[in-house]
This record gives sequence, C-alpha cells and structure tokens, in this order.
Amino acid sequence: MKQICYKPIGLIHSDYKQKDGVPIQGAFSKGSSGWVEIFPEYQAGLTDLDGFSHIFLIYHFHLSSGYSLLTKPFLDDKVHGIFSIRAPKRPNPIGLSVVKLEKIIENKLYITEVDMIDNTPLLDIKPYVSKVDTRENTRSGWTTDKMENIQKYLSDDRFGD
Amino acid sequence: MKQICYKPIGLIHSDYKQKDGVPIQGAFSKGSSGWVEIFPEYQAGLTDLDGFSHIFLIYHFHLSSGYSLLTKPFLDDKVHGIFSIRAPKRPNPIGLSVVKLEKIIENKLYITEVDMIDNTPLLDIKPYVSKVDTRENTRSGWTTDKMENIQKYLSDDRFGD
Repeated sequence: MKQICYKPIGLIHSDYKQKDGVPIQGAFSKGSSGWVEIFPEYQAGLTDLDGFSHIFLIYHFHLSSGYSLLTKPFLDDKVHGIFSIRAPKRPNPIGLSVVKLEKIIENKLYITEVDMIDNTPLLDIKPYVSKVDTRENTRSGWTTDKMENIQKYLSDDRFGD
Repeated sequence: MKQICYKPIGLIHSDYKQKDGVPIQGAFSKGSSGWVEIFPEYQAGLTDLDGFSHIFLIYHFHLSSGYSLLTKPFLDDKVHGIFSIRAPKRPNPIGLSVVKLEKIIENKLYITEVDMIDNTPLLDIKPYVSKVDTRENTRSGWTTDKMENIQKYLSDDRFGD
C-alpha cells in the first residue's frame, strides 16, 4: 500500500532531553510537566479544549529508527510482539499518551503526566472522554503482574538508535 | 516542518461500507463487529496480544479530505475546535478507537465495539492497559451533557468529501 504522510501540528516540550530517564508512562509520573507548542496556523482548533481535564496526544517517536516485531519491553525480561507493548521502535513509530491539561494560553498547552522527549513532533490532539475511552473489566495480558512497581521503572536506552 | 510518512500495517474491515450510519463511538455500539487484517510481514508483532481484552487502533481516515479548524461535531449543534472533537476532517486525519479484541487467528483480529468504515488503513495497534490508560475524576468539556443519548446518534454524511 502507498504511504500516508502527515505534517506536524506542533512540538511537545519536556524536561527530557534524551532517552535516558524518561518515565515510561505518564500515568505514573504525576509530577512530570511540559508544554505543547501548537503552530499558529492551527491555534483556532484548540477552541473549547480547555473544558477537558485530560487529552490524548498522538505524536511521532522522532528518535526511534527501525523496529523489531519481537522485543523486550521496559517492564519485562521476556520478549513480546511489538503490538502488545508500547515501545517506540514500531513499524510506524507513533506514540499515544494521555496527559493532564493544566491550562491553555494562546497556542501553548501546559501539561502534566508527561512521558515524551523534548521536541517530539505532535500529529494530533483528541479530547479524553471518560465515557468513551474508559473500559471496565479488562484483561491486561503480560502487564498484569508488572504494574505494581511501575513507578520504579524508567526508560533506559534500550530503544536508542 | 517536513512531512512524516507511514505505511499501513493492515486494513480494518467492518459492515460499514459508507459514511452514513457508522456508530460515532465504539463504546456505544457493543454489537458492532469487524476484523482486522494484518499484512503477513507484520504478523509476528501480534505475539501475546491475545492476553488483552481491549486494544487501541490508530488508523487513517481514508475517506476524509480537507479540514476545518472549527466545526460542528455529531453530538452538538455548536461549533467547537477540531482538537476538542473526534471528527475525521482533521489537519492530520488520524483516527483513534478502543475496540474489544475477541480472538486472533493467524493474521486476523476479530473485534467488536467497532466504529470504523470498511477498508480503513491501520497504522498501529497498542494494548489497552487499564492502569495506564484510565483516568478518574476527569472533566469532559462540552461533551458532558451530550453523553446520555449518545447511542441514538449515528454518523451522518456531515464529514463527507
């Protein structure tokens, strides 16, 4: 199939300047803050977004190159399929995170619960709607017994270039 | 900024052959089923995905063309910014849905809670992990009082070409 091409709508800024030390999931890094710069030509699209406490960011893992279909995630020493983990080295290196939206000032979104590297290109924003996006009675596969100490895990350079 | 290009990893198949009548959110269309064809070269990446009851699908709104930064969502007669709604006509027409994963047979994923049009190009799959992806005490902005009768709403052709 032919390629599908997108143009970034902004950049995500955070304190994480390199891959070492990035929290692996924003949900477990409540104190982690950053901001999103939306390019001015898209600013009108932010109208009414400030009514939402949380948003999805869809972004490009710009430091990721290549991929393995079977790899070890941060949380496990066993190999799993790339589509059952969230690691950056994916066939299409697309990232997805829920972050907390603290405030919007003009074209800047101030966010917490951040797990992105500085200067990550942003592709899309969607409002997080609890009644649409939350599922109950879920099974979480291999992650089930790995979640208890997740705060201790930080990204290492396993997914470096 | 320069373009970012991806190559579909598969196709989403559903009973919705055209834009009219597609449920606007899979969470409210429990009986709606479909299947995902993963191209054989990516099949190994599905390993262990069957342990998860729900997955995120990230896909390309292939029938969407152009966008408006301010538009009316299905659920409201008022205009909102495109980033505070989930409509397809976005600067980057990327779709995000949580679906229920019923079973995997070889390179086919059988899913329910489907809100995608047949032949939608799939870009990525991520496991839905309740402890990572669920947020409590959220605010849902303009959608808050629109959710009660959401099942009644079906997509119309508002976002047609």
